[in-house]
Amino acid sequence: MKRSRVGIDLAGSGVKDGSEIQEAVLTLYFLDKAGAEIVCMAPDVNQLDVVNHLKDEAVDETRNVLVEAARIARGDIEDIKDIRASDLDALIFPGGYGVAKNLCNFAVKGADCTVNLEVERLIKEMYEAGKPMGFICIAPVIAAKVLGAEVTIGSDKDTAAAIKRMGGKHVVKTVDDIAFDGKNNVVSTPAYMLGPTISKIAIGIEKLVDKVLELA
Amino acid sequence: MKRSRVGIDLAGSGVKDGSEIQEAVLTLYFLDKAGAEIVCMAPDVNQLDVVNHLKDEAVDETRNVLVEAARIARGDIEDIKDIRASDLDALIFPGGYGVAKNLCNFAVKGADCTVNLEVERLIKEMYEAGKPMGFICIAPVIAAKVLGAEVTIGSDKDTAAAIKRMGGKHVVKTVDDIAFDGKNNVVSTPAYMLGPTISKIAIGIEKLVDKVLELA
Repeated sequence: MKRSRVGIDLAGSGVKDGSEIQEAVLTLYFLDKAGAEIVCMAPDVNQLDVVNHLKDEAVDETRNVLVEAARIARGDIEDIKDIRASDLDALIFPGGYGVAKNLCNFAVKGADCTVNLEVERLIKEMYEAGKPMGFICIAPVIAAKVLGAEVTIGSDKDTAAAIKRMGGKHVVKTVDDIAFDGKNNVVSTPAYMLGPTISKIAIGIEKLVDKVLELA
Repeated sequence: MKRSRVGIDLAGSGVKDGSEIQEAVLTLYFLDKAGAEIVCMAPDVNQLDVVNHLKDEAVDETRNVLVEAARIARGDIEDIKDIRASDLDALIFPGGYGVAKNLCNFAVKGADCTVNLEVERLIKEMYEAGKPMGFICIAPVIAAKVLGAEVTIGSDKDTAAAIKRMGGKHVVKTVDDIAFDGKNNVVSTPAYMLGPTISKIAIGIEKLVDKVLELA
């Protein structure tokens, strides 16, 4: 059986300014367990900010999204500008505020956000090629912005309203469940938008990975 | 049933200068899945170095072990100096070079290393209280140094020799297996000392977590 080649787009390393580490690692785990080949990637840009995760406050430091994301990937990571849809069978975005700060500027601009040009390019390429994508936690805002997709976001009313303003649709799902938008080939799950703990968010993430691989 | 309260001692965030992120997250995952209460902790000291994980080279930066470890723990982490054995039923150390750089100086001094005083204190308290401990990947060097324990280290001859020089004993185990030293109540597994991938190291880590909880 051909192994599916699945991209994971990271946004740094740490829930408050990068990728949510636990969601990213669980995605890697379930993909590897299912026999997929994994291609980690991130944009080579500076983070919007650096947050001290102990004190929950921004600090005066500069860190690079690709360099920090490499921590999660053990150094095995590509610059997203070098990745084409033809290199992949599927693409997954774990969550974390870094998605809304570094892959797009949703954290600052809300529904009026813009998406990193390489991230937007790759999502559009994947869509045109009919290849499935998975969006976890806060990452579905990007699917709403770029594709107008129908996605989960948990239960946050403001984020759900922003999804609608961006042309997407919000679907209410529990943390152990996924939403599937067949028109856009997009799977999503709320994860830490709802919580409560790592083994609970893992249930939805495993379902998302399985669905994405089924579609790939 | 009383939930076991299990400490996880982190060493930063990133395989090359901190805790191995994937090992740490899998430990959290299997503990939470088994119903344990988790207490993340790390020493409040600066890292020995900061390594760019993309280029695999040290950079001129200063980062704090507790602050960076908080990224893995989503901010829910304690200073190890505030934790006593009486607060815990068990204690687990994930691997990563940070264990050999920040929790002790094995990476620099080998068998002549010294262990962070708070880390050494807590391990000795746990031993005296007869409470189980788990050591993953490179972390067993600390169990060898402090307790003279019988542990896994994978297949690296130099590290195995250093284990012996420190008064410990090296046991050869595959990545999907654990060693148990009943005298010291110490469980260990090779994880990324052997690899090859996240779903393979997860098998040994899940066995380690289950054994530690059985003993707790």
